[in-house]
Amino acid sequence: MSSFSFEAWLATQSQRAESALLQYLDPDTAVPQHLHTAMRYAVLGGGKRIRPLLVFAASELGSIDRVDASLVNRAACAIEMIHTYSLVHDDLPCMDDDDLRRGRPTVHKAFDEATALLVGDALQTRAFEILSNVIDADSLIRLAQLEMIQSLAHASGSKGMAGGQAIDLQNVGKKMDLPALEEMHAMKTGALLLCAVQLGGIAAQLPPASMASLYTYARALGLAFQVVDDILDATADSATLGKTAGKDAAQDKPTYVTLKGLDYANELAKELKGRALDSLNEFGPQADALRHLAHLVVDRKK
Amino acid sequence: MSSFSFEAWLATQSQRAESALLQYLDPDTAVPQHLHTAMRYAVLGGGKRIRPLLVFAASELGSIDRVDASLVNRAACAIEMIHTYSLVHDDLPCMDDDDLRRGRPTVHKAFDEATALLVGDALQTRAFEILSNVIDADSLIRLAQLEMIQSLAHASGSKGMAGGQAIDLQNVGKKMDLPALEEMHAMKTGALLLCAVQLGGIAAQLPPASMASLYTYARALGLAFQVVDDILDATADSATLGKTAGKDAAQDKPTYVTLKGLDYANELAKELKGRALDSLNEFGPQADALRHLAHLVVDRKK
Repeated sequence: MSSFSFEAWLATQSQRAESALLQYLDPDTAVPQHLHTAMRYAVLGGGKRIRPLLVFAASELGSIDRVDASLVNRAACAIEMIHTYSLVHDDLPCMDDDDLRRGRPTVHKAFDEATALLVGDALQTRAFEILSNVIDADSLIRLAQLEMIQSLAHASGSKGMAGGQAIDLQNVGKKMDLPALEEMHAMKTGALLLCAVQLGGIAAQLPPASMASLYTYARALGLAFQVVDDILDATADSATLGKTAGKDAAQDKPTYVTLKGLDYANELAKELKGRALDSLNEFGPQADALRHLAHLVVDRKK
Repeated sequence: MSSFSFEAWLATQSQRAESALLQYLDPDTAVPQHLHTAMRYAVLGGGKRIRPLLVFAASELGSIDRVDASLVNRAACAIEMIHTYSLVHDDLPCMDDDDLRRGRPTVHKAFDEATALLVGDALQTRAFEILSNVIDADSLIRLAQLEMIQSLAHASGSKGMAGGQAIDLQNVGKKMDLPALEEMHAMKTGALLLCAVQLGGIAAQLPPASMASLYTYARALGLAFQVVDDILDATADSATLGKTAGKDAAQDKPTYVTLKGLDYANELAKELKGRALDSLNEFGPQADALRHLAHLVVDRKK
C-alpha cells in the first residue's frame, strides 16, 4: 500500500464520529431527562463505529470540494443511531435477552425495559430527523438528503435489518442451510454496512460505476463481518468481546462455525477480504482507508 | 355551516386513507412473510384514521393545482404508520400491557412479543421510507418532502410522542398536577396531531399565518382528544371502545377525570372544541372538513 497512515486516519475519523454523535444527540438536560440520558448511554458507550468510518472512507472517493462535510457527519451519525437502536432492541428479553453490551450493562439492565424500548424507538427517529434538517438551499444537497433517507430506511426496514432479525429469531433451534444463512445475514447486518458506503458515495456524488464497485466491496465486507462474528463468538471470551461469548452454540443458532467448522470459516473470511480488496482496484490511494477497514474488520479480535 | 356534506367527505377520504395504506404497505408475500403479515395486521385493523383525515383536510386549504395528491397520500400513510407503531409498542407487556386494540388481540397477542417489537420498528422505518422516495424532479416537492420528514420525526421522537410516553410511564401511581399532565399529553398525543395538519399545510404550501392558525386549531383539538379519551375510559365499556376500558383508574393514572372530575372534563372538551373552531375563522368553506373533524373528535363515543 501507499504511504497513507491508517493509524492517523483512524484516530482522526474516530474522533470525528464521536464529536458528531455528541453534537447530534440531544443533551441529557432535554425533557424528559431520563430518556435522553438513556439515549446517550446507549450511543456513547464505546462501539467500534465501523459504519461511520465506512461513511467517511467512502466519501473520500469524491473530489473534496464537492463533498459537504456536515452532510457526511449527519449521515455517519444517523447510521450509527440506527445501528445502536437495533442493538438496544435486540438485547431486550423478548429478543436475544442479553445483559452485556460493549462491556457494560445493556440499556434495559442499566435502566428498565420500557426505557430501552423507547430509547430504540427515539434513536431511530433521531436518525431520520438529523438527515432531514434543511441545511442548504442547494437542491443537489436536498436530493442527496432524500436519497440518504431512502437508503437508510430501505436498509434498516422490514426488507433489510429488521427483516433479517425476524428471520433470525424464527430460526433459533432450526436447521438452516448456507444459502438461507447468507440471505439472513445479508439482510440483518449486510444491508446496513452496504448502506454505509452508499451514504458516503451519495455525499461524494460518485458515478454509478464507482457505486457498483463500492457495493461489491460492501457485500464482501458485510459477509466477512458476520463470519468473523461467528468465529469470535466460538473462540473469544466475554471479557474480550465486551458481550456474552458462546451464545450461538448455547442458543443452538446456526452459524458458519456450527455449520461448516472453524477452518472453513477462517478460510472464507480470508477469501472475502480478498474479494473486498479486489473490488477497489479501480480506485487509487483515495480508497486506502476502505482497504485498511477491510483488514480491520476481518483481522479484529473483538 | 355550509352545504358541504361531511358524511360524503368522510366516506371518500376514509376510503382514500385505506387505499393509500394498502398501496404503501408491503404485500404479505414479501420476505419475511410473517413480519409483513403482522405489519398489515397492525395497520389494517380498523382505526379511526384521524391523523390521515387531518392531513387530507388541511391540504384542502391550498389551491388544488398546487397540491401533489401522491405526496399528500404518502404523508397520510406515514403519520398513520407512526401512530400505529406507537400503539403496537405501547401495548407490549413492558409498557401498558394491553391485550385488546381496535376490537382485536394486540399484535403481541396475535403473534408474539418479538414480532410486535419488530413490527413497530419496521412501521416507523416504512413511514420515513415512503416520504423519502424521490417522486418528482421538482425541487419544491423535494423541499416539501424534507420538511415533512423533519416534522414527523420531531413530533414523534424523544421530544414529542416517545418523550411523552416516557413521562407517562414515569408517573404511573404518582401525583401529577394539571400543567404537568397537559405538557405530557401535548407531547404524547398532541405533537402528532399537530404534525398531521402541518403535513397537510406543507403539501398545500400555506403561508406562515395560515400555518399558525392551523397550529392553534391542532393544539386545541389535541388536548380535546385526550380529555375525551379520559372521559371515555371512565364512562364507556371495552366492547364499545375496542380496547380495555377503565384502565386509567385501575392503573392509578392521573387523568382529567381522576384529577378534576367528569363535569370539569366535559366542560373543558366543549371549550376546547370552541377554541379549535374559532381558529378557523379566517378560512372559508375550504376549512369545513377541519370544522367537522373537531366535532367528530369531541363528540365521539369511542
